[in-house]
Parts: sequence; structure tokens; C-alpha cells
Amino acid sequence: MRYLMTFSYDGSRYQGYQKQKCGKTIQNELEKALYKIAGNQIVSIHASGRTDAGVHALNQKAHFDLDSNLELDKLRYALNCLIPNDIYIKKIEKVSDNFHARFQVKSKEYIYKLNMGEYNPIEKDYVCQWNQTLDVTEMKRALQYLEGTHDFKSFTKGEQENYIRTIIRTDLLQEENQIIFVFVGTGFLRYQVRNMVGTLIEIGQHKRKSEEIISILKAKNRQKAGITATPVGLYLKEVYYDTEKKEKSIYFN
Amino acid sequence: MRYLMTFSYDGSRYQGYQKQKCGKTIQNELEKALYKIAGNQIVSIHASGRTDAGVHALNQKAHFDLDSNLELDKLRYALNCLIPNDIYIKKIEKVSDNFHARFQVKSKEYIYKLNMGEYNPIEKDYVCQWNQTLDVTEMKRALQYLEGTHDFKSFTKGEQENYIRTIIRTDLLQEENQIIFVFVGTGFLRYQVRNMVGTLIEIGQHKRKSEEIISILKAKNRQKAGITATPVGLYLKEVYYDTEKKEKSIYFN
Repeated sequence: MRYLMTFSYDGSRYQGYQKQKCGKTIQNELEKALYKIAGNQIVSIHASGRTDAGVHALNQKAHFDLDSNLELDKLRYALNCLIPNDIYIKKIEKVSDNFHARFQVKSKEYIYKLNMGEYNPIEKDYVCQWNQTLDVTEMKRALQYLEGTHDFKSFTKGEQENYIRTIIRTDLLQEENQIIFVFVGTGFLRYQVRNMVGTLIEIGQHKRKSEEIISILKAKNRQKAGITATPVGLYLKEVYYDTEKKEKSIYFN
Repeated sequence: MRYLMTFSYDGSRYQGYQKQKCGKTIQNELEKALYKIAGNQIVSIHASGRTDAGVHALNQKAHFDLDSNLELDKLRYALNCLIPNDIYIKKIEKVSDNFHARFQVKSKEYIYKLNMGEYNPIEKDYVCQWNQTLDVTEMKRALQYLEGTHDFKSFTKGEQENYIRTIIRTDLLQEENQIIFVFVGTGFLRYQVRNMVGTLIEIGQHKRKSEEIISILKAKNRQKAGITATPVGLYLKEVYYDTEKKEKSIYFN
């Protein structure tokens, strides 16, 4: 039986989502718990994608296969009892055997929180602190240039085959000194959101002009973009699978 | 020269505000930093009062004496560089030699955050999680009975001379499933706020009626009141010294 779970986590204490031989990760904790539930059988979890060390998730998704007669609510309860309290399973549903939590992602939403006001120690692991007022209008203008289908090689690190991604929607919300950047896209490259935010911050500082985004994208060169913003403010907010119509044929519970 | 500082902290990692021989405390961290600034001289800090392990502060106040030619901004900067990033000095001002951060407190404001909605791992150290909808109207009614001058022996632990305190103002703010209790008083006994909140929760669960507050206060017996709420949701929000008029004669910077 294949299950899809929706879960949130505080990434502060972890070396990222993905399993590692050494070090504490979200996937390790979840697989340890499922191992017990499955009667000491290894259960592999397939998430929508990794998140880096320190990055949080509000609605991460992952699937796994389990022979279990447990009701969904009891399975969820058992899992939540076995994992640390900085991870929380919000929902478990049954999905068809050909559903895949990573390959079927249609889009993802990331948000990035930044504070331009007085430092608040209570938010030190949850909001990027920037002791300077940034030009929000200019950053909003720059976001427009990031939207659409582009080669994002300038905004990632490492080598891979394909750097083409589509950013469907961006937004910049402001409440007093608090800023939230929103990015919805078909997929994101490693460090892409943090490198885009770092570049946006430099635009907000007037170190760069918003139109520079065009030449940065064209350059396909990481050196041309800005700093990598701290993981602390980054949240995987939503993972979307197909359209609502198609979803009905995927989910059957 | 006597200084008054306003500071905030995330109490999660600490065994409370007050200095201890063993264990990490806020006061220890601040005194260690001042020791260095004073050229390896011991500087004692006198706060408005202690906070317990896990309790946070948004505007705690403390005074200390220091022979220093540093400008206030530089002193603040130096201190912030020397303390961990879960404590933050917001303000330092000069005060008269007879000012005392504890003895001259006129009133204090505590807030207590509680979530009746879905558990959010990101708030695990900052909000009390209650997986049940509480009767807010009934809790608001109960708050009225707590206001005024009473003997609060039923709401504290340990023995002391005087249990009479005055609660000047209470409030209960609600935003969807989030609740904030507000308590402004001339002073609070040990565990008083957490014991009041624990009792209010039981009233919100309909385990007790709001009028029971009257008989609990009368009993002067800890057994009569409710549970002690977790420290996690508690914040020392403000410390007030005298009226604005009197303040002018105390502060001279």
C-alpha cells in the first residue's frame, strides 16, 4: 500500500532533509520511526525534494510503501509519537501505486522571511535578520524579471544537465519591517531561492539595479549573481501535484 | 556610573534568568560579557526579577554599575558582540545612582501564548500547544475575578511572607486558534502566571466554572488551583518604572 504524507518541520537542528550516513536529518528520523511501525523492516521515504540544513517546511510531501492494517489516523498518531517534536505529520492519505512524490510534482512554493527592523532573538532561527532598510519597490520590480522560463545557472551551484526552470508566480509581502518573498515554480535548483533572495537584497541595497537580473540570467555564471542568503528564513510552503482534476485520478481515498 | 539596559531573550536554552553555580543562565551570560568589558572586573547585574527556565522576555530590564568611557551605543554594541545570539540588548541608558531595577518596578506585563489549532513544530518553544478548543468567553469571565488586589497564595509555590499582589489589567486576545493572555500587575509570585493560566485552561475546558476563581483565591491553598502551564508560552513583555512624571526625575540622559 502506498501512502502520501504531508509534514512540517523546524530545520534548525538538522543537516537538511535528506538522509546522510553521518548527522541528523529529517529523513533519518522519519525512516527510523517507520522502521519500528513496519515491525523492524526498512521503509524508504521519497520526498518531493530535499531541503538544505536550517531550512524549514510547512507542507513537505513524501510517499512510502507499507504493509499495514492501521487506520490512517492511527498510523499518523503512531508516527507522531515516534518522531522528535520538531517534525510533525499533518496528514496521511492512501495513493495509487504509480504515484511518486518527487516525479509528479507540478509546482512548489517557497517563502523567505526577512526582518529589516530590530533583531528579535526569538526569531533567530526562523527569520533572516537584515539591519538595513531595503528598497522594496526596487526588489518587487526585480522579481518580475525572475518570473517565466529561464536558464537559472547563475543562481545555482554545482554542475548538472538542465538549468531551465519556470517561475510561475512571485510576490513580495510587507508588514512594517517584515518582508516575505514568495516564489512558486515548477522546480528549483540547489540554492536557487537563497541565491535569488541574496541578489534581491543587493538590489534592495541599491548595489545593483533591478534590470541587472536580465544580464545575470543571460550570463549563466554564478559569479554574476549576488550572495547566498542564510537558510534561516527559507520555508518550503507547498508542494502541488497536477491540477485538481488530475488529482482526482491519482488519489483514491 | 549606573546603567539601565532593556533586553530580550529566547529562554529555550537556559535554566532561567537568574545566575546559578551550575547551568546556563541569562544573567551568567550577561555578567561574563560585562566582566570582559570592565577589564576583567566582576560586574553584578540587577534585573527587574527572575524568569524561570524556558520563559522568554521581550523587554526585560536590569541595572549595573560600570566605570566606562564608552558611549552608550558602543557599550551596547560591545555587549551584543559578546553575548550569544539568543539574548539581545535593545537599549542602554544612564540612570541615577539610586535607581534600582528591581525595587523601583511599578508594574510588569506578562503575556502567555497558546495555540488550540494544528501543532506547528516551528513554534514548539514559543507557544503552548493545546489540542482542544477552549471556551474563550468563559476564560475571559474568569480573568475578571483575577483582577484587583488579592492574596494569590493558591497560585504560587513555596513559602514567603506576603502573597498580596495587585493585577491591574488582564486581557485575552484571540486570532483564529491563537490565544494571548495578558496580565499587568504590580508584581507576580513564583509560577503565579503559569498557575493562573493552567487554571484558566481548566475553566476553558469546562472542568471548572469561572466563579471558582473566587473560592480558589479565598482558600489560599495551592491544591485548589489548576495545573501549572508550560513555561514555553510565557513572555515577560514589559517592565514599568513609576509614572512618566516620576520617570523624568529618575532618568537623566
